[in-house]
Amino acid sequence: MIGTEIEHLIKLLARLPGMGPRSARRAALHLLKSRESLMLPLAQMMTRAADVIEECPECHNMDTVQPCAICASPARDAALFCVVEDISDLWAIEKTGSFKGYYHVLGGTLSALDGIGPEDLSIPHLVARVQNMGPREVILALNATIDGQTTAHYIADCLAVTGVKVTQLAHGVPIGGQIDYLDDGTLATALKSRKAV
Amino acid sequence: MIGTEIEHLIKLLARLPGMGPRSARRAALHLLKSRESLMLPLAQMMTRAADVIEECPECHNMDTVQPCAICASPARDAALFCVVEDISDLWAIEKTGSFKGYYHVLGGTLSALDGIGPEDLSIPHLVARVQNMGPREVILALNATIDGQTTAHYIADCLAVTGVKVTQLAHGVPIGGQIDYLDDGTLATALKSRKAV
Repeated sequence: MIGTEIEHLIKLLARLPGMGPRSARRAALHLLKSRESLMLPLAQMMTRAADVIEECPECHNMDTVQPCAICASPARDAALFCVVEDISDLWAIEKTGSFKGYYHVLGGTLSALDGIGPEDLSIPHLVARVQNMGPREVILALNATIDGQTTAHYIADCLAVTGVKVTQLAHGVPIGGQIDYLDDGTLATALKSRKAV
Repeated sequence: MIGTEIEHLIKLLARLPGMGPRSARRAALHLLKSRESLMLPLAQMMTRAADVIEECPECHNMDTVQPCAICASPARDAALFCVVEDISDLWAIEKTGSFKGYYHVLGGTLSALDGIGPEDLSIPHLVARVQNMGPREVILALNATIDGQTTAHYIADCLAVTGVKVTQLAHGVPIGGQIDYLDDGTLATALKSRKAV
């Protein structure tokens, strides 16, 4: 005996990542209980965001300005390019404050199964950007998954024609990680890539 | 280097129950990637819901009509009253289809610590409704938590003056439950409340 409007609201909320039917019901109730403080501001912000936020034609990041604030910044190091799978990865790297170059967001990984090819991931666009802007180094910051690593190898092959130096993130024991809890793959990689103290 | 609009959107999304900073970022990106199919419809539905959905003055359920569809239905059994903590509990009981009476939503449990008293939970209103409508039985369907049971005892005391029969949900082994995995409290209650086969 849930009203139609509430049911529609729950169905739409359930389509957010990480939301199930039960958490969507909880979210809908929470919204209805705090309409002035949350539901209406969120609705307005979503309408506004849909209006003003667009994909950067350069790096495929999202921003209110075109090209995005990172691509437009003259303070960044044009010699460094960082390739990431998704915008959330770009945010994670920006948060560390330890990368000052430009980005290129692929928007996913190659997947024969899902029919995702190099064109869908703007890989030809990446090659063209590297040829135009001539960075010294391209860092592949892709996930350490099979799909991520397959895509990294494919991109390294594509970039070979440009002669640019291609690197990838170091693999090993995460900071704060406990040896006893690490998976075999990480431990074996950390051993193989050991460094002099 | 996240744009202000995206940051605002993430902050608002993070205030939904069950959302953390990371899942809010994921949700924001998902919304921005599917604006026509999800972000704008959700924004519209939220604006509309804030406009049309109101609390029922009778049972404190939420609906687009006042009194709500359950309170307005003549097909329901006026002899039975079911008291629940929250609207989500009402929805859960409605889904079972095994209760056909009227509801009363408290909106929480008594809590001296949080300063939630009987007035905040519309308990005086419940007593008045029971006196006016004269049901045969009031079922207390409150959570089997300390707060829920404290509130149930308080309500039972308040309803004593009306002379109505007050019952509560049976406690015991949940259907599909495995004895070996049950907590001591549930098992002890199930033993004490054993029934002839």
